[in-house]
Amino acid sequence: MLLHLSTWPEVERYLTHRRAIILPIGSTEQHGPTGLIGTDIITAQAIAEEVGQRTDTLVGPGIPVGMAHHHMAFPGSMTLRPSTLVQLLRDYVMSLSAHGFREVLVINGHGGNIASVTAAFYEIYEEMRLAGRDTTPPLRCELCNWFLMPAVAALQQELYGEREGLHATPSEVAVTQYIHPTRIKIAPLDPHPGTSSSFSDWRDFRTRFPDGRMGSDPSLATPRDGERFVQTAVAEIVARHGDFLNGV
Amino acid sequence: MLLHLSTWPEVERYLTHRRAIILPIGSTEQHGPTGLIGTDIITAQAIAEEVGQRTDTLVGPGIPVGMAHHHMAFPGSMTLRPSTLVQLLRDYVMSLSAHGFREVLVINGHGGNIASVTAAFYEIYEEMRLAGRDTTPPLRCELCNWFLMPAVAALQQELYGEREGLHATPSEVAVTQYIHPTRIKIAPLDPHPGTSSSFSDWRDFRTRFPDGRMGSDPSLATPRDGERFVQTAVAEIVARHGDFLNGV
Amino acid sequence: MLLHLSTWPEVERYLTHRRAIILPIGSTEQHGPTGLIGTDIITAQAIAEEVGQRTDTLVGPGIPVGMAHHHMAFPGSMTLRPSTLVQLLRDYVMSLSAHGFREVLVINGHGGNIASVTAAFYEIYEEMRLAGRDTTPPLRCELCNWFLMPAVAALQQELYGEREGLHATPSEVAVTQYIHPTRIKIAPLDPHPGTSSSFSDWRDFRTRFPDGRMGSDPSLATPRDGERFVQTAVAEIVARHGDFLNGV
Amino acid sequence: MLLHLSTWPEVERYLTHRRAIILPIGSTEQHGPTGLIGTDIITAQAIAEEVGQRTDTLVGPGIPVGMAHHHMAFPGSMTLRPSTLVQLLRDYVMSLSAHGFREVLVINGHGGNIASVTAAFYEIYEEMRLAGRDTTPPLRCELCNWFLMPAVAALQQELYGEREGLHATPSEVAVTQYIHPTRIKIAPLDPHPGTSSSFSDWRDFRTRFPDGRMGSDPSLATPRDGERFVQTAVAEIVARHGDFLNGV
Amino acid sequence: MLLHLSTWPEVERYLTHRRAIILPIGSTEQHGPTGLIGTDIITAQAIAEEVGQRTDTLVGPGIPVGMAHHHMAFPGSMTLRPSTLVQLLRDYVMSLSAHGFREVLVINGHGGNIASVTAAFYEIYEEMRLAGRDTTPPLRCELCNWFLMPAVAALQQELYGEREGLHATPSEVAVTQYIHPTRIKIAPLDPHPGTSSSFSDWRDFRTRFPDGRMGSDPSLATPRDGERFVQTAVAEIVARHGDFLNGV
Amino acid sequence: MLLHLSTWPEVERYLTHRRAIILPIGSTEQHGPTGLIGTDIITAQAIAEEVGQRTDTLVGPGIPVGMAHHHMAFPGSMTLRPSTLVQLLRDYVMSLSAHGFREVLVINGHGGNIASVTAAFYEIYEEMRLAGRDTTPPLRCELCNWFLMPAVAALQQELYGEREGLHATPSEVAVTQYIHPTRIKIAPLDPHPGTSSSFSDWRDFRTRFPDGRMGSDPSLATPRDGERFVQTAVAEIVARHGDFLNGV
Repeated sequence: MLLHLSTWPEVERYLTHRRAIILPIGSTEQHGPTGLIGTDIITAQAIAEEVGQRTDTLVGPGIPVGMAHHHMAFPGSMTLRPSTLVQLLRDYVMSLSAHGFREVLVINGHGGNIASVTAAFYEIYEEMRLAGRDTTPPLRCELCNWFLMPAVAALQQELYGEREGLHATPSEVAVTQYIHPTRIKIAPLDPHPGTSSSFSDWRDFRTRFPDGRMGSDPSLATPRDGERFVQTAVAEIVARHGDFLNGV
Repeated sequence: MLLHLSTWPEVERYLTHRRAIILPIGSTEQHGPTGLIGTDIITAQAIAEEVGQRTDTLVGPGIPVGMAHHHMAFPGSMTLRPSTLVQLLRDYVMSLSAHGFREVLVINGHGGNIASVTAAFYEIYEEMRLAGRDTTPPLRCELCNWFLMPAVAALQQELYGEREGLHATPSEVAVTQYIHPTRIKIAPLDPHPGTSSSFSDWRDFRTRFPDGRMGSDPSLATPRDGERFVQTAVAEIVARHGDFLNGV
Repeated sequence: MLLHLSTWPEVERYLTHRRAIILPIGSTEQHGPTGLIGTDIITAQAIAEEVGQRTDTLVGPGIPVGMAHHHMAFPGSMTLRPSTLVQLLRDYVMSLSAHGFREVLVINGHGGNIASVTAAFYEIYEEMRLAGRDTTPPLRCELCNWFLMPAVAALQQELYGEREGLHATPSEVAVTQYIHPTRIKIAPLDPHPGTSSSFSDWRDFRTRFPDGRMGSDPSLATPRDGERFVQTAVAEIVARHGDFLNGV
Repeated sequence: MLLHLSTWPEVERYLTHRRAIILPIGSTEQHGPTGLIGTDIITAQAIAEEVGQRTDTLVGPGIPVGMAHHHMAFPGSMTLRPSTLVQLLRDYVMSLSAHGFREVLVINGHGGNIASVTAAFYEIYEEMRLAGRDTTPPLRCELCNWFLMPAVAALQQELYGEREGLHATPSEVAVTQYIHPTRIKIAPLDPHPGTSSSFSDWRDFRTRFPDGRMGSDPSLATPRDGERFVQTAVAEIVARHGDFLNGV
Repeated sequence: MLLHLSTWPEVERYLTHRRAIILPIGSTEQHGPTGLIGTDIITAQAIAEEVGQRTDTLVGPGIPVGMAHHHMAFPGSMTLRPSTLVQLLRDYVMSLSAHGFREVLVINGHGGNIASVTAAFYEIYEEMRLAGRDTTPPLRCELCNWFLMPAVAALQQELYGEREGLHATPSEVAVTQYIHPTRIKIAPLDPHPGTSSSFSDWRDFRTRFPDGRMGSDPSLATPRDGERFVQTAVAEIVARHGDFLNGV
Repeated sequence: MLLHLSTWPEVERYLTHRRAIILPIGSTEQHGPTGLIGTDIITAQAIAEEVGQRTDTLVGPGIPVGMAHHHMAFPGSMTLRPSTLVQLLRDYVMSLSAHGFREVLVINGHGGNIASVTAAFYEIYEEMRLAGRDTTPPLRCELCNWFLMPAVAALQQELYGEREGLHATPSEVAVTQYIHPTRIKIAPLDPHPGTSSSFSDWRDFRTRFPDGRMGSDPSLATPRDGERFVQTAVAEIVARHGDFLNGV
């Protein structure tokens, strides 16, 4: 059930028995020579929608642009300042809280968002405390990074081993191939996609990872793999966050 | 051409001969008993993509949640504070400007966004001036409210006359029916959907417009009408903003 | 009745039977070779004071500097960032609301302020909603752009036709001549004051409108015209906003 | 010479040989049973204009609402948050600096503004440093609190002794009587106008000073005294800040 | 009693009979060729702790970096923007207020902090008022600048006369020598340490005061003097703020 | 070498051959019935100073109050909003960068700070990019959470096993006992210190962990253990971040 495809009376009925909502967040950033710039929101959105369907939970609007400063040396990348992302998520969650939503599960497709989203949760809690606007039952926010979940990591290892890498990975590319099979891109990949796992700013990132990949080989990706990653991620999210989505 | 379905080398090539990008902005807000909560982004996105295709212009990520304070008495509505929307759009545009984009056309589906988007353009220009970061050629931002364009207004009048109303209108509902034909909702409509055209805050809005419509009769909408609205809007946007999109 | 020329016990008495206040807002910006830099606040202030007198409504302090980024290539122009103007107006209105004022009519003399003032109203409403500080009766804010009102536009057309133009217009200059008859300036005017109606940033504005006028011929202005514009604007404001000022 | 009554070419000529500007700042706050709510801006404006005339210095737009939290228990008082005042003054000064103004003299009529104005100066300097936008010659900002200047204090002591008090003082009321002789108010004054000189928040202020005065007896004020205070303040400002205004 | 060396049950017991807390604030800035960069927080901390001991008042965490823009031309100096310092102090005080602290005494070691700290107090009061979160008894904040207190000034005059100067003074250096006797630095001092008492921005400061001192001769300082300054300051703070610390 | 105990000429000399600085960050929050409220800054400061000594690296001022919203139900706890912490750290780092510091190692004693500090790093990088103020060599920021380092975790496991817990742990308490042996507190501990590892807001935290501990048994701590933790942490930090501190 997507909030965007619902009417307000339908949401009103939903809120008579449920209080959870799922928010997908991604990024708009380079994903190597063959990865789609929208990879992170495409993957998060697909997984979020599937989790919503399995658990009868409403899925709210996505956040398509995240914190991607380190990719800004690559054309087409966009970034929010962390401070903007914090205020954006605050407005999303405060709006939902006003209607009675109490469990907000953010399904995230981009590592660069983790700090800002986590900071946003505490910004929200603290603003509510300072304003004397804490609710009963309390608002609860959880972050789920689908690509870091143990079962997903196991599948990454099984399918790609070390060639999974850290950015523009075959696993995330595979999911986009599964969702957008007509948009599978082919381009030459530098055989040495960087071996570092650390970097500082946007210039340093491009120096270390000239074509945008961090040690990954996205040529391994297939749409079929993508389907498996979606299924694996969804199953694990349902297992780990199912109670939360049910208000437990 | 969608930014999210492109790779960074593709954007790099685009920027060798084009500098324009289209950004759709909508809202997440009630649209009466039968209108989808995502109506404004669905319509803006559909029109933006079609304009992008006709003019070979890149379409960037949408902004699905806008300034919808006045709808907050209806479950499922979400709003950004104007100050958040200004910072959000600033980050979008500043990111794009860094890559060499110089013409940003915001295609907007929601009247409540007009003030904040316009304010954001001047916030951006002023920040660039203050920082001594003006570009050559200059960054230019334009706002296009598809639902207010003369040809669209003429079609609204032709098809629905006064029953078009001001919110949850048959024209916008028709576009969503065209895009999502499986999500056509049916619900009883109060025969007196409010006659006022003004309101102050969110409580006042619901008092004046109890089921969310502002003088509209969305039961008139059909998917076929929706297609006509998209075509009409796109043609007029191409006519009016085509030169801008070509950097003229 | 001017707030600045009143005492607090006088305001206390006023609030026993009235809840309205008028706030003039202008700008500090070039108005062509002969127009005063303070034109927009001078006109708004004069009209606001006259409306106040006719309707027995308190007139609060003006906002003399507005959003005038696009005039910054002309010496003496000043601008607020939109974000600053939003916070400024928020503080004005929140202060007044705390005393029981409930209707705030902003009389505006500058087109560049419209977006920011409108955004500010929603920022205010939304802050009150988020803080659980909505009042009964509700706070209501209205914006009146005197120079765009139909009767004023008719008089502009009658007196000046197309030579009214869009900035540094004879109508606004006339009002300043009426208010400050000793400050009528004479200077050569470029016979081609620009014909565009659009522009982007401050540099673009000066390129299109080299002496600051937008298609206007302020040499047509007379103090007598100015008096007519004030009277016309005041009459129409009283007609359109009189009920609002009376709390209806 | 008032900026608001000048044209941009006049300012352009001024800037060929002068770089100074005077900005008056006041407050919109209760001044006891007989003092005008606009007292602080009326006095600052009058003195600023006279200093401008004596020194051929341009006088810019005033700031009529200042930091007056502690007066908010009295109807009609308005306040900016300090953070808003800092941003407001930042925008004023940054605008002027862009045109080549280099000496900004803020003539202040309200003690409550001192901290925020001083903080704003450093916010401005620091923003310029951080942005690498320091100018040559450097921007310089000075604050002048006319009511605290030694010669003014001597006259306060001479005319009123201890009955000068600390707020709603006869000296400032006298200046408003001189400027607005038709607005001299008469009202009963509590014979015990508070003797404290300290207070914390707005509630505490009203408890300590029930009618708004802080130990003052404004019934001593006369328009003739007001003229003397203006002349005294102006002479001292010229003596102390004259070099600064001349760019020395 | 230091908050940092207490447990929460100890604080809970303290709050059953006391409501006061002391916060030291300093700066991280150059103090001439021989003064420690941490001078201002070292002095404030030492005095605050001694006041705390004498009056059985809890001493909270210090603020080691203050507003020191004007020292930024000297290596090692650090500064907060005034706007940051306001928000920082707001969060400190709001946190304490939530537990029932009602009297906050800020003991300050740096003149450059005065404006921002004072502005912060009003920002706090105004935020509480706007949010409807005023407490009973009210929150009260006081600022004490130890180095400006009359008895301290008398001792400065007695010991050093004019050679006390205005920055990197022997009195503050003496206190650091008393606290850190192993860190007494010796370096050549320019015999002409500047005679101005005013300055504008960071560049101007260094031009006027090339080695960082403002007319001072810190070579006069001794640890024994430092002890006397601490004792003098503490005695006067107890005398002047003792009632406040006891909630009177 | 502590910045606070250095003079500006000493820092100037340091910067001729080194560019690194260490910043300790902690928190002011409850640490169970026996843990000091300043535990996190005490531990971070001690470890930072030792790392500074071993590597001849300058240690800057600490941040004693961090993000501790979840502890606000316990008296004495203080918190910054994440947005404040981001701006605070931005000002710290921007100040240091202006002097030529290029490597900033933040040694952190509190898990609740991780998100905000990480967000701050990207806020800083992004502000520099937007302002066109990137440096050569680039500014680099790294975060080190001493209590999560593998060797520290191994020692926690070796000494305490599961009784280490997650908050108010014996390991951090031990370090404070080592640093402040006279401040070892004894108090009854609830035998069931909570078993959950998750929580949402401040109220939820206290419900789950009534005396403030998260599954820990701080009664196991000894000063001798504390010394081992400091040595272990320091050794590992030197091993892992030594190159960074040397600008490699």
